[in-house]
Amino acid sequence: MLRVLGVDPGLTRCGIGVVDIDPTRRASLVHVSVVRTNPATPLEQRVLAIAEGVAALLDEHRPDVVALERVFAQHNVRTVMGTAQASGVVLHAAAARGLGVALHTPSEVKAAVTGHGAADKKQVTAMVQRILRLDAPPTPADAADALALAICHGWRRGAVSALELGGGDALTPAQRAWRAAEKSAATPRLDG
Amino acid sequence: MLRVLGVDPGLTRCGIGVVDIDPTRRASLVHVSVVRTNPATPLEQRVLAIAEGVAALLDEHRPDVVALERVFAQHNVRTVMGTAQASGVVLHAAAARGLGVALHTPSEVKAAVTGHGAADKKQVTAMVQRILRLDAPPTPADAADALALAICHGWRRGAVSALELGGGDALTPAQRAWRAAEKSAATPRLDG
Repeated sequence: MLRVLGVDPGLTRCGIGVVDIDPTRRASLVHVSVVRTNPATPLEQRVLAIAEGVAALLDEHRPDVVALERVFAQHNVRTVMGTAQASGVVLHAAAARGLGVALHTPSEVKAAVTGHGAADKKQVTAMVQRILRLDAPPTPADAADALALAICHGWRRGAVSALELGGGDALTPAQRAWRAAEKSAATPRLDG
Repeated sequence: MLRVLGVDPGLTRCGIGVVDIDPTRRASLVHVSVVRTNPATPLEQRVLAIAEGVAALLDEHRPDVVALERVFAQHNVRTVMGTAQASGVVLHAAAARGLGVALHTPSEVKAAVTGHGAADKKQVTAMVQRILRLDAPPTPADAADALALAICHGWRRGAVSALELGGGDALTPAQRAWRAAEKSAATPRLDG
């Protein structure tokens, strides 16, 4: 069993999702939440609040690894700086606990959970709900990306292990269920 | 007396300078160093090393305030992300100790120490040497910007205090020395 803590970094909203992935790639929800800070608060206080929120969840859930969204400078400059500052304290919190941090791009995450890298937020949320067998879309909605990151990392690692073990055609029931869900998620109905 | 710890943030080289500024604006060197990390090291380990280096200097020198370079996304994208991640852990380290963080742009810093916002690195280094009454340019050279940041912040705060106290025309000897040095720094000789 691999426990992954995924972080969708941000200063105003920092999404955090914890997922357990078993050797058959079955993923289960452990925790999901969003650490929020008020933009009117001094920057150093906001960064401290993010750092303390992430540290508390790392200590509570003791993941094996942290998965963090790789930040690009393609967005709004102010937002990107805040996102990178938040990712800095996440990297620090993980390393201070001896944990490695895996960086994944948004398109890698989308491709992993929906099968295509240009999926929209609604498709990602719907697939996260199916993969984790939730009765409703994960709430808060902001944190669906953090869960998707955690799932993405667990599966990418899992996929490598499966190949090493000579797996591939021999799908487990969970893997078959995933393939069916993946196929279903690609139908236009999810865009409506 | 105001003690300012200035940080020129970066992952490969993070410059740190500590300066004491007295009520007459006289600035004295307390400490200068550069925390370096190897680009081949995993990102989270580099961020941790920066965080630990900054924390140790904050605890050793106990500044009243931290002055940090405001990061813009105008430079190389990869570099800016690393710079913002480093600034995130500096913000965290300061706030965890109850310290405020003042952000200054590079042109504000250059204008404060050389009199013009487009000054080059050599002019900044030369002025920092004069202002702090050093026998040689500050070493390591990378940290001159961190010292300039600390001086800039101390003087901007000092300037406000002087105005509040009704000062202005009544220059202290240190202020006259500064004005003379400032004038001298503007000569072409420093560019050669």
